[in-house]
Formats: sequence, C-alpha cells, structure tokens
Amino acid sequence: MNALPDIDAIRDAAARIAPHALVTPVLRSAALDALAGAELYFKCENLQRGGAFKFRGACNAVWSLADGEATRGVVTHSSGNHGNALAMAAATRGIAAHVVVPEGAVQAKLEAIARAGGTLHRCAPTQAAREAMCAELQTQTGAALVHPYTDARVMAGQGTLVLELLRQAPQLDALITPIGGGGLAAGVAIAAHALKPAFALFGAEPAGADDAARSLAAGVRVASLSPDTVCDGLRALVGVPNFDALRAHRVDVITVSDMETVAAMRLLWSELKQVVEVSSATVLAAILKQPLRFAGRRVGVVLTGGNVDLDALPW
Amino acid sequence: MNALPDIDAIRDAAARIAPHALVTPVLRSAALDALAGAELYFKCENLQRGGAFKFRGACNAVWSLADGEATRGVVTHSSGNHGNALAMAAATRGIAAHVVVPEGAVQAKLEAIARAGGTLHRCAPTQAAREAMCAELQTQTGAALVHPYTDARVMAGQGTLVLELLRQAPQLDALITPIGGGGLAAGVAIAAHALKPAFALFGAEPAGADDAARSLAAGVRVASLSPDTVCDGLRALVGVPNFDALRAHRVDVITVSDMETVAAMRLLWSELKQVVEVSSATVLAAILKQPLRFAGRRVGVVLTGGNVDLDALPW
Repeated sequence: MNALPDIDAIRDAAARIAPHALVTPVLRSAALDALAGAELYFKCENLQRGGAFKFRGACNAVWSLADGEATRGVVTHSSGNHGNALAMAAATRGIAAHVVVPEGAVQAKLEAIARAGGTLHRCAPTQAAREAMCAELQTQTGAALVHPYTDARVMAGQGTLVLELLRQAPQLDALITPIGGGGLAAGVAIAAHALKPAFALFGAEPAGADDAARSLAAGVRVASLSPDTVCDGLRALVGVPNFDALRAHRVDVITVSDMETVAAMRLLWSELKQVVEVSSATVLAAILKQPLRFAGRRVGVVLTGGNVDLDALPW
Repeated sequence: MNALPDIDAIRDAAARIAPHALVTPVLRSAALDALAGAELYFKCENLQRGGAFKFRGACNAVWSLADGEATRGVVTHSSGNHGNALAMAAATRGIAAHVVVPEGAVQAKLEAIARAGGTLHRCAPTQAAREAMCAELQTQTGAALVHPYTDARVMAGQGTLVLELLRQAPQLDALITPIGGGGLAAGVAIAAHALKPAFALFGAEPAGADDAARSLAAGVRVASLSPDTVCDGLRALVGVPNFDALRAHRVDVITVSDMETVAAMRLLWSELKQVVEVSSATVLAAILKQPLRFAGRRVGVVLTGGNVDLDALPW
C-alpha cells in the first residue's frame, strides 16, 4: 500500500473519480504575472469539492476498495481537509468514514467533516496518539485505513490534477505545489514527469516545517521536527514513499517564512480574487522569493485549498 | 447617446471588446444550491479585467470612438470600478482617461485608477459637483464623456456578459443582477430577452438605495434619494434610459438589508471561495430572502466585482 503509484494508476484514478470530482478551472492574473516575471497558471483546487485537492485522493481510495471491504467503511487521521474529503468521498459510496482529529484543529473544518457525514474521534495532537486511535478504530470496525499522504491510492488521486492541468494549459514547463506530507507533491511529480520528462518541479515549504528541504539536502529523511508555522495544512512530516518520490523526481524545495506566505495570501485574495487558505499561498511566496528560478517560465501553480475561518484572517 | 442599445449593438460590442476583455468563468456550489433550493450559475465578473464587469462597457465605449475623437481622450465620474475600467480601456487604445472621483471614495479603488494610467480629479461627493467637474474637463480637453450607466455604448458592453453566459449555461431560465445606476441591469435585460423572451429577470437593490424598486412601483422615476447602504457600488440613482429598460423588461426588483447582504457576502467567500465586493452579494441575499421566486429555477447570478479593502471587511 505504501509503494508509489505509476502513471497508469494515475490514469485509472482519473477515470475512477471523474463521476464525483470537479474539473477545476485555471485562472490567471496579469498583475501577478508582472510581479513574478513569469506566466502563472493557477490550478484552483480551492474550487474542488470540499474546498481542497484532497477530495481527489480520498475519492480514488474509496472507489478502489473491493465491495466487501468497502462495507466496513474507511478510517483516517487528519487535521482537516483530508478528513473532510474522506467523509465526502465515503458518502458518494454510501459507506462510513471515521476521522481521527487532533485537539486544536480548526473548528470550521471539523464542522465540515460532520456535515459531510463523517464520525469525529478526538485525540491528543501528536502523531503517536493519532496512529494509536486509528489502529484501534481499524480493529473495532474493520474499516480500511486511508492514510492522508503515504497511501499510493491517495497519491494517484492527487496526481490526476496534472492530467487536467496539461489539457487546460499544455504549454507549461514548470510546476509548483506546497509540501506537507508529500502526497500531492509525489502524485504531481510522477504524473508530470511521465507526461513531460523535462518539467521543472518545485515545492514550497514553510521555514517552520522544512523537513522536506532538510531531508533532500541531507539525502536522508528527517524523521522528527516540531512544526512551527501558521500553515496548518503543512505541518506533517514528509512520508517515507513521498520522500523517495521527491528525491527521484529532483523536486526543488523553496522554503518561505510565514510572513512571506501571509503577504502572498493577501495577493491571491486581492489580485486573483480567490479565497485560499494560508498553506496554499506558500507557492506564490516561493515564486516571489526566488524569481530567477521562474523567470520567463510558464508555471502551473497549485492552489490547494480554500477552507478558512473568515473571522480569523492572519493579517 | 442616451437611447437604449438593441441586440445588434450588444453583438457589435461583443466583437469590439473580444480582443481586450476576458471570458469570465461560471462557477457553481452544491452548498449554495441547497441553501437556495435552485440551481445557481455564478457569472464571475469579479474575475473580469480590473476586477469588475465595468470593463466591458468602458471598453466598448472607448473602441466605439472615431479616431479623431479618441485622440482627445475620455472623461467620466465614478466612485471606483467604472473609473478604473475606463482608465484600463483607454490604455488599450493609448488615449487619456480623466476620472472625476468624489471625496470619500475607497482608497484601493483610487490607487487602481492611477495605476491603470487614469488622471484623478477630486470633487465634492454630490451628483451636481461630479457633473460640473466632468463638464469643465470636457470643455478644457475635448475629451468624450463616457457616463457610467446612461451611455448606450456602456449598456451594450455590459449586455455582452449575457451572450457569454448563455453559451456557458444555455439552460438558464432566470437572471439576477444588482441594480445601482442600472447600466448592467438594462444591458442584461435587453440581451436576455432578445435571446430568450421567456427569461425571468430580477434585480437586487439595497433597501437603503431602493430608488429602482420605488420607481417601478410608482411607475415614474424617483429622482432624489439619499442613499444609505454599505454597498458603495449601488448608491447611484437609476438613470432615465435605465429606468425605461427596467420597466419595459418587467425586471422584478427585490430589496435587501445591508445585514442580509453582508451575510450573503460571507457565504460567497466561504462556499464559492470568491472574493466579491459587498455590492455583488445583494443578488445572493435577494435569492435567499425570496426563495419562492427562484425555487427550482436555473438562475444566472451576476457577481459584479471583487475589489475590496481586505483590511476593512464588513463582518
């Protein structure tokens, strides 16, 4: 289950999720292009079902289950968007979704999970507590674990956005995604290089959760780090298969401060007119921080989600 | 100049602005459809050039000028989006744009006008002061007046969004726009009924600037009113030809309180993930206030603009 998907798995995923997921639009902004000195093609996964790209991977996992397995439901741990996506995906198949959420998660995201029909299980905000409660729920219910980023079915689902994006903007020669656990980055890298081997691939990571950048620099996966960033969607450590994919595809990781990310978030709201969550803005922050790496390029920029608390904006 | 455009003028406008204006996307939200009990197709003019539908009308006016007239530039009065749109449209033809702005206009909008190359002329915040300064500038410079909403070329430009929308969502049977001066509402009504005579047409108006509703109820245009609404884009009185168009096309005007509009604005941000300005939210507020008028319908909902001050959100 923890191997990496190939392009055939990603193509299968695209067919599997097509009846349920949305084809999200690609938006552009002359003002942001001018600021960046590059052509930016924003893939608006904030407009995906559930408000985040996570629905792609969750939906592929849910519909990959054999009928007998599916009847016992699915289980995961997630601080928000993946849990919500899994609950929504489970609802498309009429099966149960158990979602383990750490104390301190964003209230709006928890409400969305419950609205989607997911059952919330609260635990302490540590990796160990999450995994223990997930294991317990698996034993109790027989539900299938759908890990937020190390699951190959999840990575394949996330990779489907590249198939869409290249139909919408075939001229792209670079791509950038945020990096949290690396499910999106891995799926995107595999799909992108299968279709265009010369693609330049970038990742954006908060300086306060820069385990991917450190791991790639060291050549070995950093397995502990205390994340300190406002980017609540990017606090996870890069997974083992995810790290392998980032390294194999030579993903160039750019780290950005929270201040740079919040400034970029404002730009995405004011210029692109898109409500995106703070984690999504790391990508524009990275482009504006390292303009020479993008100068003159046609860059696919993945905006990962739009689930924000409008009463607690970070500026 | 103050007559109403016909569908041929709107089709000509579409051809004239095509090299400059954007085809804006139509977005949907399952959550908002469920709330409304109708199918809502949001025409996202917040994603138009300059962040508002106003570019359509301004661009058509600028490119309708004969060469000799164009060299003397254009002039208008506008608290924001039309002024910005005219400055941007003038820049596409390389001509001057003089924009008369009342004291107290939103600072972000004034900066946008200046950035687009427009020359700002400040005046007292009264209709008389605006018109006097416009007339003075016309005399001084020979610039052509492009009125924000009574100009037939402007109305024709605004109507072009219906041609697009019906290609994107041919199944629509109702349409709703905000009503300020009525340039958008008139252009949309003329285009909509020319293409689909059975279209049900609605307008949304702030209760604190409800001159269109009062005028239609009285059968005669209300020519004075002191607007009191947070909807800064909808404080103008409906123009004379605009009133004629609203009446001829039996536009059903629904008034909404500022509180209802601000609540609808939050929904557009949180569910549709679109940054829209408060005036744009009147349309969703009207649908949610009068659901029986829209029940089961396929409604085109025009989101007019996305130029907001992110430091002064109304909630």
